[in-house]
Amino acid sequence: MTVYFIGAGIGGIEYLTMKAYQVLNQAQVILYDALVDNSILELVPDHCLKINVGKRGGQISTTQENINQLLIEYSQQYNYVIRLKSGDAGIFGRINEELHCLKLINANYELIPGISSALAAPLLADIMLTEKNNSRCVTILTGHNPESLDWETLSRIDTLVILMGSKTLPVIIQKLHNHGRSSSLPIAIIKNGGRIDQQTWKGTIEDIIPKTAHISLSPCIIVIGKVADD
Amino acid sequence: MTVYFIGAGIGGIEYLTMKAYQVLNQAQVILYDALVDNSILELVPDHCLKINVGKRGGQISTTQENINQLLIEYSQQYNYVIRLKSGDAGIFGRINEELHCLKLINANYELIPGISSALAAPLLADIMLTEKNNSRCVTILTGHNPESLDWETLSRIDTLVILMGSKTLPVIIQKLHNHGRSSSLPIAIIKNGGRIDQQTWKGTIEDIIPKTAHISLSPCIIVIGKVADD
Repeated sequence: MTVYFIGAGIGGIEYLTMKAYQVLNQAQVILYDALVDNSILELVPDHCLKINVGKRGGQISTTQENINQLLIEYSQQYNYVIRLKSGDAGIFGRINEELHCLKLINANYELIPGISSALAAPLLADIMLTEKNNSRCVTILTGHNPESLDWETLSRIDTLVILMGSKTLPVIIQKLHNHGRSSSLPIAIIKNGGRIDQQTWKGTIEDIIPKTAHISLSPCIIVIGKVADD
Repeated sequence: MTVYFIGAGIGGIEYLTMKAYQVLNQAQVILYDALVDNSILELVPDHCLKINVGKRGGQISTTQENINQLLIEYSQQYNYVIRLKSGDAGIFGRINEELHCLKLINANYELIPGISSALAAPLLADIMLTEKNNSRCVTILTGHNPESLDWETLSRIDTLVILMGSKTLPVIIQKLHNHGRSSSLPIAIIKNGGRIDQQTWKGTIEDIIPKTAHISLSPCIIVIGKVADD
């Protein structure tokens, strides 16, 4: 009896790993988040119990405590329990608490990596996150609570990749300004990375807000740094 | 006629994406790097021309100029030309020059993301790179030339993931010391991430060098930060 934490990757089935595909085909119970593509949910057998535990528009359909409890129960009843996260579960997937609960009862679990939108959305938008001259390092963060981050440090990183940053982008840009980044610093916003309707906006931290005014940008990946201009 | 830049991911076929698998099955020419697993190379059809352009033990089998030239030629002769990189081509895959050459002749190309060892090796070693309290951001870099990096900034990042750092680890640790990081800062070294012989060493930046003396650590992913201790 094993709980498989599977990163569903981005988009549909095409960016799923072979291993994730095989395990999904044996699923008996699946707990999945919002943002996971329907085509992936259709891979599980007909008899599989499908439970949507994701947030939608800020509304929590299931509390974290509830999810933990469900995982504990199912891990003792079924051989193939799937916890499906979008992207890669290790990158802001917030699975630590769930893993902790399973460890406490000595349940078996396995982590299956997925294609992270943090790296894949820029690649699919033809933006190379690392480059000999312009990007010797890349930092991944979320835009959830920008006030809690050390922008003095972040403003000195060659390339920033920001998840869940569409709402706080004005604050993030203000922070970069405050710490001396030039108005001409390139920025790219990639919406729906890996999907058929993937779309990219490019600009500078000066003009990206007016350029994307009145556009719904979520879900998106934001890249800030010289490589966003290539 | 298209050149497909494919990230082979880590380990064998199991962490390949469905899309990469499908495209490899149609390959007519494949230029591949060292570190790509043999099981993946066996997926291409019998008639496919296989060219090893990777480095082995520091020895370059093919110069970058040569690779560029081969890509240009094949892109005009075949429908399915594959450029296979280990991990994800966008993360220190050094494909910018190759892409540039193909753009100059207006050749079609497509980028197919792969599972990056930077994110997957830690996940498979049960290390969550991001975490609410201990890791609000993660920075990916290589250990190739540590003298060229800004360690004042890097030493203030919650979690560092270092590729190709086994040789320069003593220099990296010295830099972190010089910039005030405590001797008790946790570090983990994951060798052969995603393979059956994956192995992890954990310690602090004080004791990891003596702990791993006389062990050949390459290829490895190094994680530095509190999350390496969980």
